[in-house]
Amino acid sequence: MSVAGFKKQFYKASQLVSEKVGGAEGTKLDEDFKDLERRADVTSKAVVEVITKTSEYLQPNPATRAKLSMLNTVSKIRGQVNSPGYPQPEGLLGECMTKYGCDMGKETNFGGALIDIGDSMKRMAEIKDSLDIDVKQNFIDPLQGVAEKDIKDIQHHLKKLEGRRLDYDYKKKRQGKIPDEEIRQALEKFHESKEMAEGSMHNLLETDVEQVSQLSSFVESMLQYHRQAAQILEELSDKLSQRVTEAHSRPRQKYTPKPRPAFDYGELENSNGGYSPAAASPPAYSPAPAQYPAPSFQRASIKNRPRESDR
Amino acid sequence: MSVAGFKKQFYKASQLVSEKVGGAEGTKLDEDFKDLERRADVTSKAVVEVITKTSEYLQPNPATRAKLSMLNTVSKIRGQVNSPGYPQPEGLLGECMTKYGCDMGKETNFGGALIDIGDSMKRMAEIKDSLDIDVKQNFIDPLQGVAEKDIKDIQHHLKKLEGRRLDYDYKKKRQGKIPDEEIRQALEKFHESKEMAEGSMHNLLETDVEQVSQLSSFVESMLQYHRQAAQILEELSDKLSQRVTEAHSRPRQKYTPKPRPAFDYGELENSNGGYSPAAASPPAYSPAPAQYPAPSFQRASIKNRPRESDR
Repeated sequence: MSVAGFKKQFYKASQLVSEKVGGAEGTKLDEDFKDLERRADVTSKAVVEVITKTSEYLQPNPATRAKLSMLNTVSKIRGQVNSPGYPQPEGLLGECMTKYGCDMGKETNFGGALIDIGDSMKRMAEIKDSLDIDVKQNFIDPLQGVAEKDIKDIQHHLKKLEGRRLDYDYKKKRQGKIPDEEIRQALEKFHESKEMAEGSMHNLLETDVEQVSQLSSFVESMLQYHRQAAQILEELSDKLSQRVTEAHSRPRQKYTPKPRPAFDYGELENSNGGYSPAAASPPAYSPAPAQYPAPSFQRASIKNRPRESDR
Repeated sequence: MSVAGFKKQFYKASQLVSEKVGGAEGTKLDEDFKDLERRADVTSKAVVEVITKTSEYLQPNPATRAKLSMLNTVSKIRGQVNSPGYPQPEGLLGECMTKYGCDMGKETNFGGALIDIGDSMKRMAEIKDSLDIDVKQNFIDPLQGVAEKDIKDIQHHLKKLEGRRLDYDYKKKRQGKIPDEEIRQALEKFHESKEMAEGSMHNLLETDVEQVSQLSSFVESMLQYHRQAAQILEELSDKLSQRVTEAHSRPRQKYTPKPRPAFDYGELENSNGGYSPAAASPPAYSPAPAQYPAPSFQRASIKNRPRESDR
């Protein structure tokens, strides 16, 4: 640090101490400046907070969001282009439905319906991904740009302004000991910084037209997403109504126990398991207990009864 | 435990050991039974997994979900009716927008737009709450009912069946030492349990019509939600388009520094701050540096220039 630089630091520190400790009053900024500062402050906070809350709206699981953000950073460092996307809960639900639907078989009522809905939920996840990307590109990123450039500029100029004010106030108090010209220069610099700060704050407030356009694009993205979702679900709803009608018209399969094989007193010693179904006696079955009401237990093999869909 | 009960437990344990350790083969269940068991198993797993994944879809933040579930339990214990709802991220975004919009003032471009969107986001949170409640009542709760009753019944009967099979196999191996009638009774009980298990599994598989109806109601709830969301956003989009047009047509306010008060060589010693704006000199202002391009710094007071909205 040069001697001049050191002296300047000393002046500022000394003035700060006499203000904070000694209760000395420094030069006040005018009301217009304070109003501008207040408005710029609200706008800065709004920009930062809206970015955060919009990210939380798009990617609501904080743990997954954090993990994803870390993975994206790693991808960038490695120069990889494809970074992983957010695992949309509708997609996870869709995959689970498709999996179990296939396990049950698409010819079953429940299985078939699960496959239909699973497919639609996966499409819902795709359009949610698109929403995510659109909003990031057209809303969050531009706002982030504002936050990173304009807001930092303002912070920089306000800090500089405070330093120059302290310098000016220090010298002003020592008028006589310090040459008038030096005080005049300090005041000039203070004014210069004030104008720079005002300019940067005014600049932020003047980007409101862009911000409104970006907000409007955010709303358009959401509108498009919900319209597409409604369309996917309308198609699905038609399919499912048909399934419900079909399922209701399909006769219920009744459970009937198979004839029980009789106990064979002679052969048992040779076999260590299994019983001979040849020697079948008619089932000695009593009606179902209370917890199995309605459709149960009539006589007809489950396996041999043809299903509606097989006819 | 009675002597008979103890003997039964001993038989079963003894047979289990000879199967697990000695490699003895027990009575096998027929293929139809195994097929039924497999299908019931897939259905049970599907029901449980779909419930979980649907809850995650509706309430995607696991920490909040867990907290809410705990609070709901506490409310129930205390007999309180109103339990807190899930804090929808669109609602939190909406509140933040409304707050900052009001701070900026609804007459400003950015502030006014934020208030409009904030209101709509809060309405979006309300319809999301309705979706949440609808899906819980008409889809998750009925499925949960299936999981809690039918699936538990099946588990109970399968466990009982396994016990009776072990008892039968133990006695069968000791034919001669154990009276034939006792073995016949054990086989009869084994068959009885097998039929009970079959009945309960069949019962689960037969609820597929209800399950398809519930899936259909889930889809209808989602469809209604997305339609309502699209409607809210359409109205909002119209409002915002108007705002964008207005904002663009509104002349930009130019920043012009105020005239700088001159350095007054005489009066400074009396004042410990503030400078006299009376002795104003024309601003000695040089053009803005690179980081403040375009609209800035022309001569006209910010405060005195009328805004479009004030005219």
